[in-house]
Amino acid sequence: MLRKEQNDLLTQTGPGTPMGDVFRRYWIPALLAEEVAEPGGAPVRVKLLGERLLAFRDSEGKLGLIDEFCAHRGVSLWFGRNEDCGLRCPYHGWKYDTSGQCTEVPSEPESSGFRQRIKLTSYPLVERGHIAWTYMGPPDLQPPLPEWEFITVPPEQTFSSKRLQESNWLQAMEGGIDSAHVSFLHRGALSSDPLFKGAKGNQYNLNDSAPVFEVVEHGSGLYIGARRNAEDGHYYWRITPWVMPCFTMVPPRGDHPIHGHFWIPIDDENCWAWSFDYHPVRALTEREVQAMRDGHGIHVTYVPGTYRPAANKDNDYLMDRAAQKAGITYSGVSGIAMQDASLQESMGPIVDRTRENLTSTDNGIIMARFRLMKAAKALRDKGVPPPGTRPEEQQVRSAAVVLPPDQAFKDAAGEALRARPGVVQASV
Amino acid sequence: MLRKEQNDLLTQTGPGTPMGDVFRRYWIPALLAEEVAEPGGAPVRVKLLGERLLAFRDSEGKLGLIDEFCAHRGVSLWFGRNEDCGLRCPYHGWKYDTSGQCTEVPSEPESSGFRQRIKLTSYPLVERGHIAWTYMGPPDLQPPLPEWEFITVPPEQTFSSKRLQESNWLQAMEGGIDSAHVSFLHRGALSSDPLFKGAKGNQYNLNDSAPVFEVVEHGSGLYIGARRNAEDGHYYWRITPWVMPCFTMVPPRGDHPIHGHFWIPIDDENCWAWSFDYHPVRALTEREVQAMRDGHGIHVTYVPGTYRPAANKDNDYLMDRAAQKAGITYSGVSGIAMQDASLQESMGPIVDRTRENLTSTDNGIIMARFRLMKAAKALRDKGVPPPGTRPEEQQVRSAAVVLPPDQAFKDAAGEALRARPGVVQASV
Amino acid sequence: MLRKEQNDLLTQTGPGTPMGDVFRRYWIPALLAEEVAEPGGAPVRVKLLGERLLAFRDSEGKLGLIDEFCAHRGVSLWFGRNEDCGLRCPYHGWKYDTSGQCTEVPSEPESSGFRQRIKLTSYPLVERGHIAWTYMGPPDLQPPLPEWEFITVPPEQTFSSKRLQESNWLQAMEGGIDSAHVSFLHRGALSSDPLFKGAKGNQYNLNDSAPVFEVVEHGSGLYIGARRNAEDGHYYWRITPWVMPCFTMVPPRGDHPIHGHFWIPIDDENCWAWSFDYHPVRALTEREVQAMRDGHGIHVTYVPGTYRPAANKDNDYLMDRAAQKAGITYSGVSGIAMQDASLQESMGPIVDRTRENLTSTDNGIIMARFRLMKAAKALRDKGVPPPGTRPEEQQVRSAAVVLPPDQAFKDAAGEALRARPGVVQASV
Repeated sequence: MLRKEQNDLLTQTGPGTPMGDVFRRYWIPALLAEEVAEPGGAPVRVKLLGERLLAFRDSEGKLGLIDEFCAHRGVSLWFGRNEDCGLRCPYHGWKYDTSGQCTEVPSEPESSGFRQRIKLTSYPLVERGHIAWTYMGPPDLQPPLPEWEFITVPPEQTFSSKRLQESNWLQAMEGGIDSAHVSFLHRGALSSDPLFKGAKGNQYNLNDSAPVFEVVEHGSGLYIGARRNAEDGHYYWRITPWVMPCFTMVPPRGDHPIHGHFWIPIDDENCWAWSFDYHPVRALTEREVQAMRDGHGIHVTYVPGTYRPAANKDNDYLMDRAAQKAGITYSGVSGIAMQDASLQESMGPIVDRTRENLTSTDNGIIMARFRLMKAAKALRDKGVPPPGTRPEEQQVRSAAVVLPPDQAFKDAAGEALRARPGVVQASV
Repeated sequence: MLRKEQNDLLTQTGPGTPMGDVFRRYWIPALLAEEVAEPGGAPVRVKLLGERLLAFRDSEGKLGLIDEFCAHRGVSLWFGRNEDCGLRCPYHGWKYDTSGQCTEVPSEPESSGFRQRIKLTSYPLVERGHIAWTYMGPPDLQPPLPEWEFITVPPEQTFSSKRLQESNWLQAMEGGIDSAHVSFLHRGALSSDPLFKGAKGNQYNLNDSAPVFEVVEHGSGLYIGARRNAEDGHYYWRITPWVMPCFTMVPPRGDHPIHGHFWIPIDDENCWAWSFDYHPVRALTEREVQAMRDGHGIHVTYVPGTYRPAANKDNDYLMDRAAQKAGITYSGVSGIAMQDASLQESMGPIVDRTRENLTSTDNGIIMARFRLMKAAKALRDKGVPPPGTRPEEQQVRSAAVVLPPDQAFKDAAGEALRARPGVVQASV
Repeated sequence: MLRKEQNDLLTQTGPGTPMGDVFRRYWIPALLAEEVAEPGGAPVRVKLLGERLLAFRDSEGKLGLIDEFCAHRGVSLWFGRNEDCGLRCPYHGWKYDTSGQCTEVPSEPESSGFRQRIKLTSYPLVERGHIAWTYMGPPDLQPPLPEWEFITVPPEQTFSSKRLQESNWLQAMEGGIDSAHVSFLHRGALSSDPLFKGAKGNQYNLNDSAPVFEVVEHGSGLYIGARRNAEDGHYYWRITPWVMPCFTMVPPRGDHPIHGHFWIPIDDENCWAWSFDYHPVRALTEREVQAMRDGHGIHVTYVPGTYRPAANKDNDYLMDRAAQKAGITYSGVSGIAMQDASLQESMGPIVDRTRENLTSTDNGIIMARFRLMKAAKALRDKGVPPPGTRPEEQQVRSAAVVLPPDQAFKDAAGEALRARPGVVQASV
């Protein structure tokens, strides 16, 4: 349970908020690279951390992320013309380059110096691993580019998607590090989803619905271990790494690709749920990629022309009571992603955490909140930068392993929790 | 005319408001019994008096009305699985019985006593006369079950429906006790609606559009008498009983079933208009029931899959100016219920009663407001329970009678205003 | 750039606001005459300056503009019956004439004097030039009827339309007096629109995209001159008259009809964009009228049954990126009116003028704001009536002329800027 001011601290990420300042110290996914693939193509509206921005790729192929609105009289540059080396406002022809610098004001002589003084807010936008990333913090504190394993493996080994989630980022993220719900909510999917089924580990999940949780801190986040009974007194451990502020990976299953998420605030009542799948040592198969595109696994299908899921709150997530009754799906909602999202959105845009009743299985959530609050206060009060921005802190993996009963999961899993190029994941 | 604080007092019914506390002393209709007919069937969202609740019938057939949200982390239990003797949250498997008591938390050992301490807000839900009723007040002050005649006659003699009204409850209720508008707004319907036409009394209504009103108080509400001229110096009296806080019956017509209403606040800007039809001494005919299902009389047709009327503010209530011009309908809107609702909704969600200009025909409304304000203040300031909660106070009927000019309607109608099993209504 | 309180002063026009009081001193367009053409026809909801009103033409042909809501209990008189010499509320039959005077309360004897004391707010509504005009200010200060040339020429010489604009009136108006954007935004339309193309002046517009602006004050507004290079060292002047608070005319092109606008506040976040076309000395051709009806020139096509443009913010104004790329349209939006409206709406409902960066080409806008603020303060603080209400102040015209380099446009254009019956416009 949180006090109201704690809930506000964690959930508000607009300009000038403590948690917003934390987010502004990281490289975060801004949009899919394919959305701004074409040099000189259409600009794309991007709202992040409460800021209305515009992404575009200029005629030379350079990426920019700038204030959506023209500095002149406030017209949306979404209507802009992506011309030679810049985006031109169609109202009076003011032109901006990818850095937000105004490069032309037709009505003013160049010699006046007027246009040189006009510069829009802008953030770097860098493509890595099918995703265009941005950093919205102080330029002089910009960390190295992100090095998550899913973006550093060869392109044919990785797949990413995003979907709109109509809730605050935190309740989405809390669902992601909450390994306890798998035995319930996703029960049906474990045996039917092409990207989940068939792994031996699923049986441990289904057979033991009262896992014991152990949470271990590391420098930039947590390892959350969920222990279930396996054969011969051994334990089946599912280990979820969480790296501040919002990166996590689902423990793997057999030889399936590993999946993970980011939850990036759009504003305080909406977020982008980013979902990736990759395999450390092999290309994704055609069948796997097709399944991802078809909305299986942690991906979804969309309302055409948008990134809003086809199953959404306006259609009660296509609830199927008969399938729920028959146990085909546990909640009546189809698909792992929407099973999660439907419940998280049902809490309301920002869940009231003063009313919750947490249990021991919520320890990962409790400790993640604690780390986030601590980081937000340290940055706000003392200017201490939050952890998790260095590439070496991003070399994490989830794991699913069977261990003898006397071994601490963190020590025993050891190397399995590190991303190691060319080494297969530890997965049962 | 009311002062603003009076209007607020009467129209606000959320938790902790004086009028909300009044409503919480009565059994009120919560939903149609058919919505929760099936043991183990789908739970139903029910919002009442500003509280978001969930109704369900458990596998044993018991009815429950509980807080919509799981006590754990706030997920909507509408996604719940209606399992053996309880509703199970699909997120982590917490289970609740119809009393809101948590009966299982899979992750916690039963011996910990954890789940025993978890209990959701819940209210009794009781089926009587096709309707599931609830009482949302202090448990120790729960009154006897409701005994309105329309729910105590045999099932084949009664029919109920509900519809969403997009306005505060009070302006809907005021329309219901306002006999004066019948000669105008419903003029067309009196001669065409299968559940209204053909009664001799209609002629008196149409011939005298300046009725004289007399309002008589009784212990738990009012009798509102509307006097119109009949033959030979006699008077045609239409007598509308109103019982606190929101029950009323339309004066009958010939041998047609008698109809009446409740207006139950959903929140301050929406209410449920409950409409019932019953005959004290005979079964409803197949033709009558079909007419009710087809939206005639005081009933409506719906937007499919909802209880929102098919004619609603988004389509201007299917206004037909040609029918208005021709006098087929008086306002251009079809159907008695939507003739009322369209005008009441047109006042805005909560009408500003500081601007009204009342006349003598509004005396029933004026006195009802006075009674409601008096009851709200007595309860708030002195803990005095409001009247109308006892079954004997619910034994009322409307009547339509022709009386000699020298008789007071209340005395002369006398017994006709009491519900008497097996005795036909007094109706011209 | 404005301070916040200046922006508020200019953009707020509800009852009791200083700028609202300014607007209430003028005759303003309320609705198209064709909307209330039929005696005894359907009443029409009209929201102006934040007030919800109802326009109707009574059975005798008289026009009225009255409070939308019945004085009795607040029902919308839009549901009213337009009967003999008055609009009757369908609830209890109260009847009002075009002056808002209650002429009948059926339940009260005429002798009681009750209905005589009931009078709704009402404003005069007068038809002139296809438009029904109203004056919403103090009755004793009502100015003479409007005498704009477009409403005083014979009916076959003039055409008017209106469209909903989903922004504050001021940013719409500022677009109208902003001659600088023509060379950019409307570039494509100048050579393709049937009501614009073919004029010699268009070439000057396209050849010189850095016009020099001169703004000259006159008693009731401004003349805004945009100077572009023509042949032989001469200048091509486009002269836009602006008359307080929101009248303007587009400089003409060849023999095309002249066009102009009013922007009338509906509320602070919406306005009516009124658009007219007329020719001073000849009837509009059938082809011209058809083009206007088809949404060419400054007119639009609509969502059926409304005055909302078919291209609107919900469909991103039917943005066509290919047409933008090819230069067929400059912004990708089709049609001059929606090219303007799309950008003006993209600024948000009320643009934040504390963030703008104005240039010399914005001088017209700067001076218009100054005049408006000055008038609002003079009226508020000293009761000084704003200028522009007298018919002689309305005898203005736009002009497009080629002048020698040594002539001041205002002096040289001279008579061309006055509306003179039977004299053709000065247009290149």
